[in-house]
Amino acid sequence: MYDLVVVGGGPAGLTATIYALQKRLNVLLISKDLGGQTNYHLELPIPKDQPVVRGIEIVNRLRSELERLSFPHRLEAVERVSRHAEGFAIKTPAGEVIQARAVVIATGVQHQRLNVPGEEEYLMRGLSYSALSYAPLFVGKRVVIIGDGERGLRSAAEMALVAEHVYLVGPTSRVIGTPLGKKLKAASNVTVLEGYWVTEVIGDTYARRVAVRGPGGESTVIDADGFFVEMSLIPNSQMVVGLVDLEPQGNIKVDARNRTNVPGVFAAGDVTSTYAGQVLVAIGGGAKATLSAYEYLLPSL
Amino acid sequence: MYDLVVVGGGPAGLTATIYALQKRLNVLLISKDLGGQTNYHLELPIPKDQPVVRGIEIVNRLRSELERLSFPHRLEAVERVSRHAEGFAIKTPAGEVIQARAVVIATGVQHQRLNVPGEEEYLMRGLSYSALSYAPLFVGKRVVIIGDGERGLRSAAEMALVAEHVYLVGPTSRVIGTPLGKKLKAASNVTVLEGYWVTEVIGDTYARRVAVRGPGGESTVIDADGFFVEMSLIPNSQMVVGLVDLEPQGNIKVDARNRTNVPGVFAAGDVTSTYAGQVLVAIGGGAKATLSAYEYLLPSL
Repeated sequence: MYDLVVVGGGPAGLTATIYALQKRLNVLLISKDLGGQTNYHLELPIPKDQPVVRGIEIVNRLRSELERLSFPHRLEAVERVSRHAEGFAIKTPAGEVIQARAVVIATGVQHQRLNVPGEEEYLMRGLSYSALSYAPLFVGKRVVIIGDGERGLRSAAEMALVAEHVYLVGPTSRVIGTPLGKKLKAASNVTVLEGYWVTEVIGDTYARRVAVRGPGGESTVIDADGFFVEMSLIPNSQMVVGLVDLEPQGNIKVDARNRTNVPGVFAAGDVTSTYAGQVLVAIGGGAKATLSAYEYLLPSL
Repeated sequence: MYDLVVVGGGPAGLTATIYALQKRLNVLLISKDLGGQTNYHLELPIPKDQPVVRGIEIVNRLRSELERLSFPHRLEAVERVSRHAEGFAIKTPAGEVIQARAVVIATGVQHQRLNVPGEEEYLMRGLSYSALSYAPLFVGKRVVIIGDGERGLRSAAEMALVAEHVYLVGPTSRVIGTPLGKKLKAASNVTVLEGYWVTEVIGDTYARRVAVRGPGGESTVIDADGFFVEMSLIPNSQMVVGLVDLEPQGNIKVDARNRTNVPGVFAAGDVTSTYAGQVLVAIGGGAKATLSAYEYLLPSL
């Protein structure tokens, strides 16, 4: 039986694993890949002269630190985590069952996609699923934010502080009715296309424009320097449904020390209620999750 | 009036400031120094061949990132943070008052000292105030942990998993009565010196031994490879007493998103209830504190 199984190999999972190895825990990392969302870098048709904290470089350091060490690691998914005797049973899609005394879930989120022509083609070439880290690059530029809910609204509001013009495509009337929604609608550098949806992403080397259609069937094309799909996030928490408390959207509820409501089960990174889409936040959460797991395990080590 | 004042320039405060600059907030950093606890590196008379996550290097990167940017920064302390009109008033020891709409407190902790001969001399040369990060270096070595409470107990328990021998100096009978205390007392590689205290730290280039005295007046000398003072931590939260909720020990209570109970006041790093004494945890907290502050400020930016 392992002391600890870490599920997920993004920034949170990598950090959780490194801390477990430092603590000399008998740890297994199970992940479909190493690096998670940091494997995707948005390329833009504008120069990156603004300083940005390079979370990606920190992740690369963590990964090479891990690669210097020898430790159990499996490149596969996890189907289910359930209680088992004095610990937990981790079941893979192939039906194999791994046992552990404690678990860290760091499986991240999936982004809801548009499913329109051009989306796959321009993904990370002008089109991305998170505006947050890139806002400083768009000073004086034109940006399209595609989103029906709160996430889209906040991204548009943030972009509007730096960009020359922001198009917000698709917000519902409920979202536009909030104070932030009203403020956006009144802003001179924001165009709110309520109830519109994107029908195609068009470009050359990079995405250059989107075709949109309105609730009355009217269609138009919007040119911009960057395109961000800010729809719902789908937390990868299926494997712990019924085991730990989740938020209505599916995020794993954690306290300030990355503990779930079940002793022995910890969670970190974007899959949790502290979703931030930020490498440094995920790293800090991964470290805390393993420190909490260690505190849990220590009396019996 | 500033959008945000960050108090404290350790890993949490530096990260909070960088995030605020990225978000183009009008931010002021007030700190007595830059780097905080990471300015102290423990030198040991043993080789460092074990891998350790180099939080210090990440902090240096953050610091040079900050130095490339021009932003308001004051090298001084903060005496008091209080509510003021639509925001907060930050008072310096010289009596100056700075106004801000939101505040991040990242002022860290102080370590309770022994106040015995040799302590100052050997500080960071064999003697340190946190065993946590260094445990992997002590495989097969002898370690003295000095502490009367839970912190000393946990450090001793963790060290006992790797070290050849651990001396725990000074635990109270209450602490020794806990399950972890009993386990330590029964461990063959741990000597528990209940009710003892250190009278002197002795060495050459490095600390090599401590003189201790027992409750009955008996005295002896203990040789070891590393000495860790794991007494109480004193959170630097004096400036927000009466403003935000604190834990009984003085740590600032924060939720999983680094918000205090007062809207507009955020906190991160070792001064908070999520104390970990770990750079990566502090960095993640600093990032989250500013993201939460930004969310708080966004409707009125």
